[in-house]
Amino acid sequence: MTSSFARNQWYVAAYGSEISNELLARTICGEPIVFYRTSAGEVIGLSDNCVHRRFPLSEGRLVDDKIVCGYHGFTYDQRGTCVYVPGQQRIPRTARVPRYPVVEQDGFIWVWIGDPDRADAGAIPRTPWFEAEGWSTVRGMERLEARYGLLVDNLMDLSHETYLHSTSIGSPEVAEAPITTEVDDVNQVVYVSRRMDDAECPPFYARATGITGRITRWQDIEYHPPCLYQLHTRIAPQGVYPPDDGPDDQAFHVEIANPITPETETTTLDFWVVARDFAIDDPEISGSLTEITRSIILEDVAALTRLERHLAADPGGYQELSINIDTGGLAARRMLRRQIEEADLAQARS
Amino acid sequence: MTSSFARNQWYVAAYGSEISNELLARTICGEPIVFYRTSAGEVIGLSDNCVHRRFPLSEGRLVDDKIVCGYHGFTYDQRGTCVYVPGQQRIPRTARVPRYPVVEQDGFIWVWIGDPDRADAGAIPRTPWFEAEGWSTVRGMERLEARYGLLVDNLMDLSHETYLHSTSIGSPEVAEAPITTEVDDVNQVVYVSRRMDDAECPPFYARATGITGRITRWQDIEYHPPCLYQLHTRIAPQGVYPPDDGPDDQAFHVEIANPITPETETTTLDFWVVARDFAIDDPEISGSLTEITRSIILEDVAALTRLERHLAADPGGYQELSINIDTGGLAARRMLRRQIEEADLAQARS
Amino acid sequence: MTSSFARNQWYVAAYGSEISNELLARTICGEPIVFYRTSAGEVIGLSDNCVHRRFPLSEGRLVDDKIVCGYHGFTYDQRGTCVYVPGQQRIPRTARVPRYPVVEQDGFIWVWIGDPDRADAGAIPRTPWFEAEGWSTVRGMERLEARYGLLVDNLMDLSHETYLHSTSIGSPEVAEAPITTEVDDVNQVVYVSRRMDDAECPPFYARATGITGRITRWQDIEYHPPCLYQLHTRIAPQGVYPPDDGPDDQAFHVEIANPITPETETTTLDFWVVARDFAIDDPEISGSLTEITRSIILEDVAALTRLERHLAADPGGYQELSINIDTGGLAARRMLRRQIEEADLAQARS
Repeated sequence: MTSSFARNQWYVAAYGSEISNELLARTICGEPIVFYRTSAGEVIGLSDNCVHRRFPLSEGRLVDDKIVCGYHGFTYDQRGTCVYVPGQQRIPRTARVPRYPVVEQDGFIWVWIGDPDRADAGAIPRTPWFEAEGWSTVRGMERLEARYGLLVDNLMDLSHETYLHSTSIGSPEVAEAPITTEVDDVNQVVYVSRRMDDAECPPFYARATGITGRITRWQDIEYHPPCLYQLHTRIAPQGVYPPDDGPDDQAFHVEIANPITPETETTTLDFWVVARDFAIDDPEISGSLTEITRSIILEDVAALTRLERHLAADPGGYQELSINIDTGGLAARRMLRRQIEEADLAQARS
Repeated sequence: MTSSFARNQWYVAAYGSEISNELLARTICGEPIVFYRTSAGEVIGLSDNCVHRRFPLSEGRLVDDKIVCGYHGFTYDQRGTCVYVPGQQRIPRTARVPRYPVVEQDGFIWVWIGDPDRADAGAIPRTPWFEAEGWSTVRGMERLEARYGLLVDNLMDLSHETYLHSTSIGSPEVAEAPITTEVDDVNQVVYVSRRMDDAECPPFYARATGITGRITRWQDIEYHPPCLYQLHTRIAPQGVYPPDDGPDDQAFHVEIANPITPETETTTLDFWVVARDFAIDDPEISGSLTEITRSIILEDVAALTRLERHLAADPGGYQELSINIDTGGLAARRMLRRQIEEADLAQARS
Repeated sequence: MTSSFARNQWYVAAYGSEISNELLARTICGEPIVFYRTSAGEVIGLSDNCVHRRFPLSEGRLVDDKIVCGYHGFTYDQRGTCVYVPGQQRIPRTARVPRYPVVEQDGFIWVWIGDPDRADAGAIPRTPWFEAEGWSTVRGMERLEARYGLLVDNLMDLSHETYLHSTSIGSPEVAEAPITTEVDDVNQVVYVSRRMDDAECPPFYARATGITGRITRWQDIEYHPPCLYQLHTRIAPQGVYPPDDGPDDQAFHVEIANPITPETETTTLDFWVVARDFAIDDPEISGSLTEITRSIILEDVAALTRLERHLAADPGGYQELSINIDTGGLAARRMLRRQIEEADLAQARS
């Protein structure tokens, strides 16, 4: 049996701002993990299973940077080593819970799912905008009742904006614009780019940027399977840029990240972060950008939840017909499939 | 493995009045179907699965009698042929969704489940009363959380009226009246008849017909498996008709149809139509007949839902003891089983 | 496949006070049973399945100490023999539902699950306090959404009081007190005892007994697998009793029983009875004892429900690490496992 999830990979488990001295339970790729921040500021991730009777440690309490299990008081330090058991002095040598490699970077908490010895923090893709000078960021997360592959499909093919998000960001140009797809198998990245040379300016952009006429609009997808989906978007007044592109110092930039984190076989954590380099001190713009983004995410959540139920009701009949717009999505699936197979193979060998 | 549903058969999917220029999703025998009415008035039934990523077409929009998928805009005409895909001119040759044979007749929308080449509209049993002069009709539908066989059992044995519907139409005579059962294997019909020569007149009938004394009461079941259950009922003042029957021109008639449509393995669409040939212009009588019938249907729904949960909790232990009253129900089961086997065989051969 | 439940055993199905001339449905070890009390006061337990179409008899009515099925009127006497069927005089010889051996004793309704010929009422463990002179009793029952083994674990290891019930009955002494465990394989009993020589007096005890200082506190578990868990507790002012124990006529006694009755594979009936031999005529004390006990039971219910969901989400990974405090719980599990195996063997032979 092949797995559904790519192990030996980094996943976004949370935003850094979510982790405090309160225990936080998250399930990542089917593995229950408890997170907390020590008094020294370090983020700890431990297997959320007491060694004694598997009571979730996240139901316990944090005392002096140690987790006290809420059932019988087994107590674990930051390395997952049990330092107290009730009713006896001797602590069994095997009393320890697995600790997960965790990295806090660019506002995200990344957790390594797989063999800890293979974890390389340097392999985590960067998203510098979300904590950089000159940028303003809004963010959120929705729990999606659908397998994570449906969200990958959704994000890799933006032509759905024209139909699913017709009342917000969709315009006929998106579905009609030709795309270019590039697959980098060495660095494990899929790129899908669209340039619309003469497009309508969505009302939100007009208000936030002051552009009054039509625009040139770029959408550059950069997907690092399994988890990090990025969308680099730019707009500029129509005519400023020649068709063959060039430096974009006169464009307005919106940098979007959608970390796609499998929770279980049929549920997904749908993180979203949106940074902009214009009107960065305008709270009204931040508010409406949050509202617009969240409503778009909820349209996707509703559609994918419906699709998940539809597919689950008739699992045998899953047939598809792919066309040009799916080139990027199909490349992403192939890369994910290979990551899963490699991890399965590594596990079989170990 | 044998199927649960008889394929190569007609099923009632809806009332004609339910189908408009809004998309209607119905699942019949486990197959999701989207229905709509063209501007020319024709009723269309297409497989409710976009060929692209299987998004339900019923979540899309109807534009110029064509369905536009709500996810990426794939567009289908009335024959199910895809006439538009996003981002490219060429439409793949295989881009079409199956179209279901559909017949609108006597107020029902019938759909053929199975091999379209075998669909014969002439084989659909008629129920002329529901749209005829001199008759007044009320109707409704309840979704039942139980396998459809339980509803077949329920309707084929009216002795349950005495116990389950004791406060409405049940009277001791129903359970005690002898039944005659006739099985027509050529035309695939099961008949079960009851005649009560000296019965109480239920209050509703007394009020609507003006009968003041006791009555002769006939209940003639005519079941065309799998879908169409009919109950021809008559009442007349006691003594008007001799025990050996004869022309019934002095009786009051109520014609009932209960199309039994399997939705999934464990859910059923329970349609009900009641026509009468008396007090046909009295809206008060129509109102109370609707109310009485609906409350009886809901008693059945509650009992069968409870029974379904009871059987599902212990699937191994399904044993039964049948008696005389079950003769019709057992004949119906045999006929259904044969229909299922024949369809399975036909599919295996094709 | 081995079973989950020990058959050929007595289980508490209800309190005597719950059984009247209304039909009561209870599922015990996966078997649906309908209970009622005859006009002569006898408690009857019959299989809750009509022989005809398996409609639950508990949905019917009791007429003259006989159950009339609510679907088609099949009628059963106290022995489970069918005495009426609709539409015919002859009653099939095989029309009978199994009757369960039932014993009413010490306030409990015990039912025998297994081969009726092996039922020995003398084997039911006694709990005389709950209906005896000089004792006052409160009781209740919670339905627990967890496999019954989790409740056995919970009750056999009271060190959890210190953590899970820290705000009510828990105190550090409970988790730290050494335990002695005794296993009686002949009589099928597991004993676990704790004596705290110098413990805090919980506020409730102080108020109800008038003790003002520290106390000696005994907790003596006596578990008769599968169903009857008892906890004999005593407190006395610290210093009255020597460390080597002796007659306890100066102690205050609280006798607790927690019958643990498996309902289905993943649900359990959690009965609780608490009797005391002090302040027995004080309704205020009875009220607060009910409130305290119920809130403790609900803490256990919440924790075990959470644990059940946690274990069910990852059934493969159920590993445990046991320590000294688990000696009694492990002995209970072994005894239960043997009871299950013996019943499976007996069934295989029959």
